[in-house]
Amino acid sequence: MQTSSRGIALVGFDADDTLWRSQDFFDEAQQRFEQIIAQYVDLDDAGNRLYEVESRNIAFFGYGVKGMALSMIEAAVEITGASIRAADIGRIVSLAKELLQHPVELLPGVRAAVEAVAAHHPVVLITKGDLFHQEAKVRESGLADLFRRIEIVSEKDPATYARLFEEFGIEAARFLMVGNSLRSDIAPVLQLGGWGVHVPYHTTWAHEADAQLPDAQARMRSIASLAELPQALQALEAAASQA
Amino acid sequence: MQTSSRGIALVGFDADDTLWRSQDFFDEAQQRFEQIIAQYVDLDDAGNRLYEVESRNIAFFGYGVKGMALSMIEAAVEITGASIRAADIGRIVSLAKELLQHPVELLPGVRAAVEAVAAHHPVVLITKGDLFHQEAKVRESGLADLFRRIEIVSEKDPATYARLFEEFGIEAARFLMVGNSLRSDIAPVLQLGGWGVHVPYHTTWAHEADAQLPDAQARMRSIASLAELPQALQALEAAASQA
Repeated sequence: MQTSSRGIALVGFDADDTLWRSQDFFDEAQQRFEQIIAQYVDLDDAGNRLYEVESRNIAFFGYGVKGMALSMIEAAVEITGASIRAADIGRIVSLAKELLQHPVELLPGVRAAVEAVAAHHPVVLITKGDLFHQEAKVRESGLADLFRRIEIVSEKDPATYARLFEEFGIEAARFLMVGNSLRSDIAPVLQLGGWGVHVPYHTTWAHEADAQLPDAQARMRSIASLAELPQALQALEAAASQA
Repeated sequence: MQTSSRGIALVGFDADDTLWRSQDFFDEAQQRFEQIIAQYVDLDDAGNRLYEVESRNIAFFGYGVKGMALSMIEAAVEITGASIRAADIGRIVSLAKELLQHPVELLPGVRAAVEAVAAHHPVVLITKGDLFHQEAKVRESGLADLFRRIEIVSEKDPATYARLFEEFGIEAARFLMVGNSLRSDIAPVLQLGGWGVHVPYHTTWAHEADAQLPDAQARMRSIASLAELPQALQALEAAASQA
């Protein structure tokens, strides 16, 4: 990796809801889950009940479509008092397969923004979730060639970023992360002394919305879309060079 | 990584059924699946029916417990003509959770064998399957510290090994892989010009049993247990040094 003595030496990009749409499709799947459940019970909190099951199952299943589908099935059995029919369980399995096969839809301006950054900095992709599904999306995105490394991790916490910095041979203070999740992309990197550009997505899974930012606002910017990334990067780059 | 000019410079270990028991627990889960199904239909080929569903679903789910559980649920709905009760579907989800939480049971002599190899060669762990579950097993095994790198991959084919050799900065001819699967651990490494030590396990998933070995028997050895590994490695090392 590049090692000039100051400034940003490596830029990391999150993938889901940063480079391509993802949460929308999960939200749609959840709506269809609620429609299936509504045949059995009249609930206005089926979504919350599902989230409870998903939250307690993260320790077993981790993130991703397959774990979501198993949690949906568990929640469906629980919520309906085990009255759900097998054919409707089969529909939940089909939801998972559709989600896993959904075409990758890049967000507007993504390729141009990544190319603009990659022209001046090595870039890596750091994404969380199911190895098999994430690899398929990276392949299908057509962006794989732009990234020096593709890292698929099970959790985006300070320990994971610290391990990656060691593998990359880079100090945290020379690393900038771009992503939609304050919890997974921004907070842990700031905490380690790195830099962040937050690009909020219009919908966020409850789990990712739960974030505590360290007192390091000078080392981050928020932008409305990746089209603003080169400018934000330049501003933080100037700050990093003086750091 | 180490780069003396000849001989084996890096040794890779498979994990499931090479370092610790795995297929036994999958076999047990499958027996319990068949017992659940037997309440509904009188079949002597429920196992084959499940394998058919698993095989066609690998393209969607990849390997691992969560994909297996979703395939079991799909197969259960199919085999029972959608007559299976929700409570029994719930039992299949529980099977998956039990499998994911099963304590890691190292195979006999594993720690001593890996330590003996690691005393003379850098060693890496290369395992296939679910990122989240494999990471948990590596942590729990107590062996993580022995390995220079832990690589969890979605498929063990020549393309994957070629990418890893590039990341490791090593030629195939300097790499030796130790594992129980001819298909995943031995054949692709031999095909690329590397070396292999096959340690058969007493039970093999049908998918892994399906292997075609290249004509490279001089570059592999079969041993009955990892206790014989140092000797097999020495024999291949001698051959590699003359290659």
